[in-house]
Parts: sequence; C-alpha cells; structure tokens
Amino acid sequence: MTRVAILGIDGYLGWPLAVHLSKKGYEVSGCDDLIRRRLVFEVGSNSATQIKNWSDRYCALHELNKGHDSVFKKFNITNYKELKDFLKEAQPDAIVHFAQMPSAPYSMKGVREAVFTHINNVIGNLNLIFAMREVCPEAHLVKLGSMGEYGTPNIDISEGNFEVEYNGRKDSLPYPKQPGSFYHCTKVHDSVNLQMACRFWGLKATDIMQGVVFGVSIPAMEGDAGLMTRFDFDECFGTAINRFCAQAVIGEPITPYGRGGQNRGFLPLQDSINCINLIIDHPPEKGEYRVINQFEDVYNLFALALMVEKVAKGLGISARVVPVDNPRIEQEGHYYNPVHKKLLELGYSPASNIEFEVSKTMRILEECKERILRCKKAIAPKTQW
Amino acid sequence: MTRVAILGIDGYLGWPLAVHLSKKGYEVSGCDDLIRRRLVFEVGSNSATQIKNWSDRYCALHELNKGHDSVFKKFNITNYKELKDFLKEAQPDAIVHFAQMPSAPYSMKGVREAVFTHINNVIGNLNLIFAMREVCPEAHLVKLGSMGEYGTPNIDISEGNFEVEYNGRKDSLPYPKQPGSFYHCTKVHDSVNLQMACRFWGLKATDIMQGVVFGVSIPAMEGDAGLMTRFDFDECFGTAINRFCAQAVIGEPITPYGRGGQNRGFLPLQDSINCINLIIDHPPEKGEYRVINQFEDVYNLFALALMVEKVAKGLGISARVVPVDNPRIEQEGHYYNPVHKKLLELGYSPASNIEFEVSKTMRILEECKERILRCKKAIAPKTQW
Repeated sequence: MTRVAILGIDGYLGWPLAVHLSKKGYEVSGCDDLIRRRLVFEVGSNSATQIKNWSDRYCALHELNKGHDSVFKKFNITNYKELKDFLKEAQPDAIVHFAQMPSAPYSMKGVREAVFTHINNVIGNLNLIFAMREVCPEAHLVKLGSMGEYGTPNIDISEGNFEVEYNGRKDSLPYPKQPGSFYHCTKVHDSVNLQMACRFWGLKATDIMQGVVFGVSIPAMEGDAGLMTRFDFDECFGTAINRFCAQAVIGEPITPYGRGGQNRGFLPLQDSINCINLIIDHPPEKGEYRVINQFEDVYNLFALALMVEKVAKGLGISARVVPVDNPRIEQEGHYYNPVHKKLLELGYSPASNIEFEVSKTMRILEECKERILRCKKAIAPKTQW
Repeated sequence: MTRVAILGIDGYLGWPLAVHLSKKGYEVSGCDDLIRRRLVFEVGSNSATQIKNWSDRYCALHELNKGHDSVFKKFNITNYKELKDFLKEAQPDAIVHFAQMPSAPYSMKGVREAVFTHINNVIGNLNLIFAMREVCPEAHLVKLGSMGEYGTPNIDISEGNFEVEYNGRKDSLPYPKQPGSFYHCTKVHDSVNLQMACRFWGLKATDIMQGVVFGVSIPAMEGDAGLMTRFDFDECFGTAINRFCAQAVIGEPITPYGRGGQNRGFLPLQDSINCINLIIDHPPEKGEYRVINQFEDVYNLFALALMVEKVAKGLGISARVVPVDNPRIEQEGHYYNPVHKKLLELGYSPASNIEFEVSKTMRILEECKERILRCKKAIAPKTQW
C-alpha cells in the first residue's frame, strides 16, 4: 500500500486525484488552505459544478479511506511547522504538490497579486523541500510545474536537460525557460530550487511540465454527485477549453484570444490523473530530478475553439467562435515542438479522444447552466499585460 | 546632473558607490534597512573596519550632496508603499539595486534563512519592478546579480542570451542557470522576473553578473576615515580574498576550501564601483534587458590563496596556506570561460593589478587587527551543504 499526501487536495486536480487513488486502494492524506475557493470568489466567479464544503468532502474521503490512517488538515504550507507536523503524521511515500496559486492572469493583476503568488508558491515549495529533508527524505516529490515555463522557443523543447553544443564544446544543461506571466515565473523558480535540492540533499522529485487540462469528470467520481470536482470558467482560473465549453453552453460566443494561433499542449482531466498515478508508481532514483512533459498532444487555440463549436452544434447547442483582442503579449503563430516521451514509456495511453471529452464536459455543464449564467461577467478578459 | 537612487546604500558596495558618485557630482539618494549590519552580528562577527552609524553616515553624505535634493530613508523594500514613496521623492534617472541578502552560506543554514533570503531578495525585487512601472518607468534599473547564477557549465558562458542550435533549428535563448545556493537561486529568480518585466512593460535594466569583489578602499574615500566602507571576513559575508587577507593579518592559516581548484571571476572594489558608474552612464534602450558579466579576470582559488600568502610575506607578515575540507558541494577543477566584453566596450580598464590591491587591503587591515581577532571564530566554515 502506497501512502500519498496531496498538498492542495481541495483543488481542480487535487480532489479527483484523491478520489481516484482512494478508490484504487492507496492511502490518501491531504491538506489545503482553500485558496482556490477564496480567489475564484475574489474575481467574481464560482465553480460551475456545485462542490461540497471542506468538512463534508473530507468525511466522504475518510469513508473511501476506511481502514487507513489518512490525515486531512486545513492549513497553508507557507506555515513550516504545520507542514512538518502534517508530513510526520501522514508519513508519505509520495507527496503530490498541487498547493499553488495556478492562474497566470491573477498573478498579473498587480503587485499585491504578484507578491501573493510568489509567497504562496515559492515559499510554500521551499518549505516543502526543507520539510521533506527533515521528515521524509526518501519520499518522492511529485511537483506540478507547467509547460508554460518554457514559453515558445524556436527550437524543440527537451524533456529535462538538453544536450547543447556551443562554441565547439558540449554540455547537458537545464533547458532555458521563458515564462510568460509571474505565475509561470514562480513555477520556474520552484524548478530551480527543486533541482538544486535534489542535487545537494539527495531528494527525489518529478517536476511535471503539464499542459492545459480540461474536462470535469473522471470515472472514479461518476455516479456520485458528492464526489464532483470544481469547474472554473472565469478569465483567471478557467483554462481555454473549459472556458470555451462554458461559453457555448450559455449561448455566448466562444472567444479565443487574438488570432488564436497559439499552440499549446492539452490533456483531459482523466489523462492528467492517470499520468500522475503512473508517475507515483514509478518514482525516480534517490537524488534524481526528473522532468516530465505531460500532455496528450499539441493543439492550436483557434482550432480548439472551432472544435468546441462543432461539438456544441452536435449537441444541439448553437455556438459560434468570435475572437477577441488578445489581452496578453504572446506569440500568435509560432514553432512549438515539445518532446513528450517519458510518460508513453511509463505506459501512458490517452484515455479517450478530445472531442468525446469536450462533449461529455458540455453535457455535464448543461446541468450547471444557471450557475454559469450567474457569474458570466467573469468570463471576458479584464487583466491585460 | 544624473539622479541616482541606491537601494542598499549602507552595504559593502552601496556605501562606496554613494561616496564615489557624490564626489563626482551625481545627485545621490538611498535607502537601506541595515540588514547587513544585523546579519553579520547574527553570525557572530563584525566589520573589520569601524564604520559610522546610520545617522552620522548620512549626515556626511548630505554634506557631499550639498545643493541637491538627496533623500536618505531607512526601510525595507519589501514594504511596497515605502518604496514607492521613496522613488517618488528621489525621482531617479538610475536605480542601483543592492538591497539584497548577499551570502550563499547564510542562505543554506536552514529553512528560516532560506525563506528570509527569498522574501528579502525576490519580493524586494518584485516590488521594485512594480514600483518602477508605477512611478518611474523611464529610469534605468542597475540590478546586482551574480556570476554564481551560471554555476560552472562545461561550455562558454555568454553575456546575455546565447545562440543555440538544437536538432537542426536555431534560437537566441536565455543562458541556462545552475545556481549553487539558495542565495544564488534568488538571483536567478530575480533575473527571470526582471527579463519578463522588461519585455512586457518596456522597463530598461542592466542585470550585472558580478564576480567576487575584494578590497576595502577606493580613492573617493581615502583620507577620510569617516567615509570608510565595511569589511567582512566571517564565513558568511566575507568573500574569498577578503577572508584570506584577514586570516593572514591575524597570523591564522589561509584556508581555501578543498583542493581550491574552483575558478571564479574576481574584481577589486574600485573596479566594481567604476564599472557600475560606466553602466549608469550608458543605459540600455527602453524595453532592453541587458546582461553584463562584470569581473576583471578569472582566477583559481588556490592560486589566489598562494598570492595572498606571497603578498603577506612581502609585507613582513608570516602567512601560510592550509586547505580545509570543502563545506560545499561544488566542482573543484572545471572548465570556466565566461565572456566579458561589454564593459570593455563601454571603456572599462582595470584600475590596478590584483597584487597591489591585496597589498593595500592588508595594510589597512593591519590597523583593524584587534577587531578581527575579537571575531576570529566566525571565519572557519560551519555551514555545510
């Protein structure tokens, strides 16, 4: 039996992972400070799906973990003592670190939000590195990074260090990062700190450069509305496909940003959970800092918008794509070729095709139409950079 | 007349730069939170040179800036409002940012020190980026980074982006960083944040990757003991050559770490000040993030220890080199070839040779022997990683 501690267990990914692993017999513990709930409220939105409150959720999770010594705590990992106590109690074999502020636009709103993002993410991660060293140096840290750390370089993106030849000499070096928001900057900072900690202290970690996740349901939570995960559609916490689906469902135009020529890696929620499960089951060596690029395939934003439009029409929903001015400075139309071999080598095979996932998502969202309509003002981009 | 605001004006570099620029007719303002004084005390040491207290120093500096609207404030730049108010009052053309925790060993002592270093350095720098955008977007930010950001790659180190060819395609990318302490990590984080801010907001900045500075006196402060800068020799805040000089002067063995085969860039204090003056006089374009590798030449640590021994003997001081176990994980004996052309193009020519500077330093330190002896326990390395 593997003991897994999920930091950020209440979030979009943390909760489904907890349900999935619990049902598979892993001993799941977790902590959260409910930051996601608070910040989505702060930007004037709410989860489209109705999710249970903290106490009810963790009663349900305790039930799924019956017979295990699961620990669920509400605290922020920037509090070192609470984090250390939690790890001592949970005694994890693997720690999945999702406890971060996950929004690029939120981090760009102003100095308050940028500083909050840095403290929450970078100090939280730094505390975790030290707490692991002190409490559980043999545990495997599964850290959620982002494909957005790389930016959009004009050369292939390697998976981990890249072999570079320069002025006639060679070395294997960390891949150069070009993050596009302060949120993405914090992910880069975490990667730098973590790689050093593995080198110096023999910690083992997988740094997941994850693409954009979409969808709302996984098999482990189907048939039990109380196990549903959150679904955000606002400009800050709603990611591209999810936002498009929400727009289609309420009869609003689907709005890619700018020409929509941005290429990004995407994967359905189910695949994200399956991949993390695979990673937990295949830890790296002691002292190894392993980078995994985690996505199903690369898609063009405009093509995705059109695909959502098509699927919506198939469901009898009249949808249309209407691009809006890009609120961000980013390349629209660019080379993009990230390697993603390691998960396939570990046994990853995509759970379903993207159109099927989008269709499933929209059918669930149709039940949540009123809740989306109530916060529809939060969808249009207001944060510019 | 150029208005220069020095953040961290009370430190080893900040103070001599303030004296140097004031005497040359620049309008100098500055702020500091006296962190350096406090932390050196915390690690059980003190400046070898006797420096004036904050009030007396800034009376002296006001005197040198007579007729100017100089502003001197005591606060920490992690306080955004105080920073903004200071910049509004000082109206700088150039901002020299030295207000950071500068010690690798201190940052590696434990979680408390690592977190302090991150908050002080990364949040301080982030506040500065936002405050500049709000108050003085046209000012030139001269940010002190470190050659230690690069680590010791097996290929040449470029000065700014490097042209890389990979799998048959080319791009100009940020140079991969491999910092060797949490302190150096914070400098890398700052570089990432700053480069992005220049790109998005049109700020202009010079990120100085500085080598190890040594020495204690510059012409502008000679002949006036009240203008003397601090000189640290403890394991945390004393850099290699300075520590060697202090050891020689009090008759203790000169202790390079390990085999001493580490190669690093070095420069005398006078050169550091001259280079920063040059950089202030030659700002980059709006939106430009300029990287400058700032050092006189690359030296081998063991060779430097022998050089200090030789110079000491020439002054009649009986000194000897006795290597100690390396308290750090670092390469000893490695390729090291950082480009450093930009300062030479701006007109930098080394002020004097390294042996002369070491000799001058030791003669000054001989007057401070009692103060060094009082804290000599602080010299030996205790922080390991």
